[in-house]
Amino acid sequence: MGLKDVEAGHRNEAGIATVIGVLRQRLGDQLQTGEALRAQHAHSTTYIPGQLPDAVVFPESAEEVKMIVRACADHQVPVIAFGVGTSLEGHVNAPHGGISIDMGRMNRVLKVNAEDLDCTVEPGVTREQLNSDLRDTGLFFPIDPGANATIGGMTATRASGTNAVRYGTMRDNVIAVTAVTASGAEIRTARRARKSSAGYDLTRLFVGSEGTLGVITSVTLRLQGIPQAISGGVCPFPSVEAACNAVIMTIQMGIPVARIELLDALQMKACNAYSKLSNSETPALFLEFHGTDAGVAEQAAMFAEIAAECDGGEFLWTTNPERRTELWKARHNAYWAALQLRPGAKGISTDVCVPISRLAECVSQTQADIASAGLIAPIVGHAGDGNFHVLVLLDPEIAAEVDAAEAFVERLNARALAMDGTCTGEHGIGQGKRAYLTQEMGEGVSVMRQIKQALDPMNIMNPGKVFAFED
Amino acid sequence: MGLKDVEAGHRNEAGIATVIGVLRQRLGDQLQTGEALRAQHAHSTTYIPGQLPDAVVFPESAEEVKMIVRACADHQVPVIAFGVGTSLEGHVNAPHGGISIDMGRMNRVLKVNAEDLDCTVEPGVTREQLNSDLRDTGLFFPIDPGANATIGGMTATRASGTNAVRYGTMRDNVIAVTAVTASGAEIRTARRARKSSAGYDLTRLFVGSEGTLGVITSVTLRLQGIPQAISGGVCPFPSVEAACNAVIMTIQMGIPVARIELLDALQMKACNAYSKLSNSETPALFLEFHGTDAGVAEQAAMFAEIAAECDGGEFLWTTNPERRTELWKARHNAYWAALQLRPGAKGISTDVCVPISRLAECVSQTQADIASAGLIAPIVGHAGDGNFHVLVLLDPEIAAEVDAAEAFVERLNARALAMDGTCTGEHGIGQGKRAYLTQEMGEGVSVMRQIKQALDPMNIMNPGKVFAFED
Repeated sequence: MGLKDVEAGHRNEAGIATVIGVLRQRLGDQLQTGEALRAQHAHSTTYIPGQLPDAVVFPESAEEVKMIVRACADHQVPVIAFGVGTSLEGHVNAPHGGISIDMGRMNRVLKVNAEDLDCTVEPGVTREQLNSDLRDTGLFFPIDPGANATIGGMTATRASGTNAVRYGTMRDNVIAVTAVTASGAEIRTARRARKSSAGYDLTRLFVGSEGTLGVITSVTLRLQGIPQAISGGVCPFPSVEAACNAVIMTIQMGIPVARIELLDALQMKACNAYSKLSNSETPALFLEFHGTDAGVAEQAAMFAEIAAECDGGEFLWTTNPERRTELWKARHNAYWAALQLRPGAKGISTDVCVPISRLAECVSQTQADIASAGLIAPIVGHAGDGNFHVLVLLDPEIAAEVDAAEAFVERLNARALAMDGTCTGEHGIGQGKRAYLTQEMGEGVSVMRQIKQALDPMNIMNPGKVFAFED
Repeated sequence: MGLKDVEAGHRNEAGIATVIGVLRQRLGDQLQTGEALRAQHAHSTTYIPGQLPDAVVFPESAEEVKMIVRACADHQVPVIAFGVGTSLEGHVNAPHGGISIDMGRMNRVLKVNAEDLDCTVEPGVTREQLNSDLRDTGLFFPIDPGANATIGGMTATRASGTNAVRYGTMRDNVIAVTAVTASGAEIRTARRARKSSAGYDLTRLFVGSEGTLGVITSVTLRLQGIPQAISGGVCPFPSVEAACNAVIMTIQMGIPVARIELLDALQMKACNAYSKLSNSETPALFLEFHGTDAGVAEQAAMFAEIAAECDGGEFLWTTNPERRTELWKARHNAYWAALQLRPGAKGISTDVCVPISRLAECVSQTQADIASAGLIAPIVGHAGDGNFHVLVLLDPEIAAEVDAAEAFVERLNARALAMDGTCTGEHGIGQGKRAYLTQEMGEGVSVMRQIKQALDPMNIMNPGKVFAFED
């Protein structure tokens, strides 16, 4: 678990001071050292304590990023890329100090190729900004991790979200990146063709590398046509098992659901209280279908049959946008509703992902574990992917609660690994899950380390993330 | 171009002799050194000359692969993994001699998880064998590179084929591999969950690494449900531009075509002659739709409208299996038909892939180039991906023809790169395209080399492929 192994390490004080001097001279006001700003750049939306960088720089071009990285490389000073700080595993912390590179000013949509369904953006573009920019093109970018994260951050953590079941994750939707490596060179990982067999897949190597191999300076993304019709619906189930069986049958029949989300009974109860709804307080699936008018009707009809076969209640669905928003209200407000189960508490979000055949078992064993550990912890899942989040509500000041939560998370991750699953479906490793990565990947972590050492021999690129490099 | 830079390099004679002795003692008859067999294992379906390994071993388990790799590593002897030898760029050649590891006896389907739509197979399983094994499950493996290649070989070259437009390439359909690295360790690149953010994407690193980072010992694959309905059709167009415009509109409207293949006029003419058909001898698109009965009808209707808008002729389509085979006959026999344009000639297949907005331009410029170079070279394209193959028919004994073909291929690859495309959509680099990789990836090749050096410091894993490591 995170807390115990994120201690600050060795700091290269002389190098840091020199680099700050050099960068201040070259960048003027684009370098800031105020404590509040630095604290904000170590901000993590989890309970992992912040570790402040020594300065924050605001580059406005890839050329400036290159210059910054080269200065840091010359003096062996850590470089931490920063989007908007919505990552959940301490990704933007600076355990050895160093320079936080805030990508906020590199927020231009550089090119939209509507005929090719792709676009190239700077890393500081947020997903909402991108979709707003795309509105007139009839295209959209589907990946939706909840937070209004930047495309650079989403690329670095291999983010996904509710509609990965249909459109894939960042792995599937990044065509190429440009990145400045530790040597100060800017590489482009691929051309703009939709497929390629030209050498090693550097694009996929950078997607999910969490800033440890280079600083991303642009991202070329796949886009999707906005579907003719979108329908949404909700269906209650008597048990998590019944809901999961409906999910498996839906996937197996090849129904191209755009979203299929699971909320457990506690989460449904929280949503009813928070949003003043009267949904049945049993597990429920929230679905969305994308397609033609006839297509979404057909998909809904097929799902309704499956739901009935799995003892589900009535499947309510609609293509009317207002009514759809109404049906999905519980899902949209789930996070805030969950927090209100224990006002004032902090939430720790877990992120296991298992083969879907094991999802029901994993969720129900986890619910039993939550009950026996005396935790308050509702569950929301991207069920079509076998990925679910437990939001453990705790008071971080009470050591016994933190211990109980950590022990629970450890059991949960072990349970997922035993089912051939992963400790992280979409949040990444960061600082919080380094120990679990070793459990999960075994000898594979050695290969990752060899790559890290080859590309960043001085360990200046977001050190202390993914693996404890200095151990 | 390939011919000039595939000369045999340094041979470690003493090491090779020692390893053969060691392996013969341990494996008995599973090691063979007969010349015919060695020649067959250097066989390449192109005109790149064969370079024979010194011995061929037939392991029956991952343990044996580990033992073989360790013996080779101890004596710095090259290791070349071999599937069935259908690769096109000299991938299985042994420029420095060494041991060819024939995966033919590791051909078991280890596990099918029908509920999770995945399976795990040994690398020597062929795609036809896999689909035949899956028949009773209602599932199929969609990747179809034409040849009945092995899953290991398809993984190593990041293969795709006609239905990548819908189902993706090997990149998208491999969930995990196990591989023996140059250190003799067996790693597993991922768990069986459908998505993960757990560290570097080792799976994608091994997919497309052409045996240069390790020997694949098993592959876990995504499967698809066999669709309720499959329909196929063909539509003539007055020009390549008109056909490509129809492709762009089809993709942009989000019609989930399973296949959309382009044949140029020369190829259609060849098909008519070879298969005694009476298709119009103009460019044509061959389509396949997968879905429900209503879905495939809707897709066909939408495509027919697009075709009409793009000046296409009548779109004939059917769900009847026999009639569908009949409509698709020209496409299925395209390769053999093309060879008959010049009986006795050898074919060189090119493999560029460009953004689809540039496809019409790229194909028509290439046709003009073929004409002015006086070549006979029909074109077949996976148009939905922007990938097309020119089959240059030549007599390899006539130097002037070889020179003309090489110069043409050079111009074609340069044209694709200038359009932000790649020199290889699905065949890989091997020996034949190493120079083009450098043109395409620039500084990125240095990063690939750093990875290769880190994971295989003695360069024993399929040396001389992807990049000229010893330069």
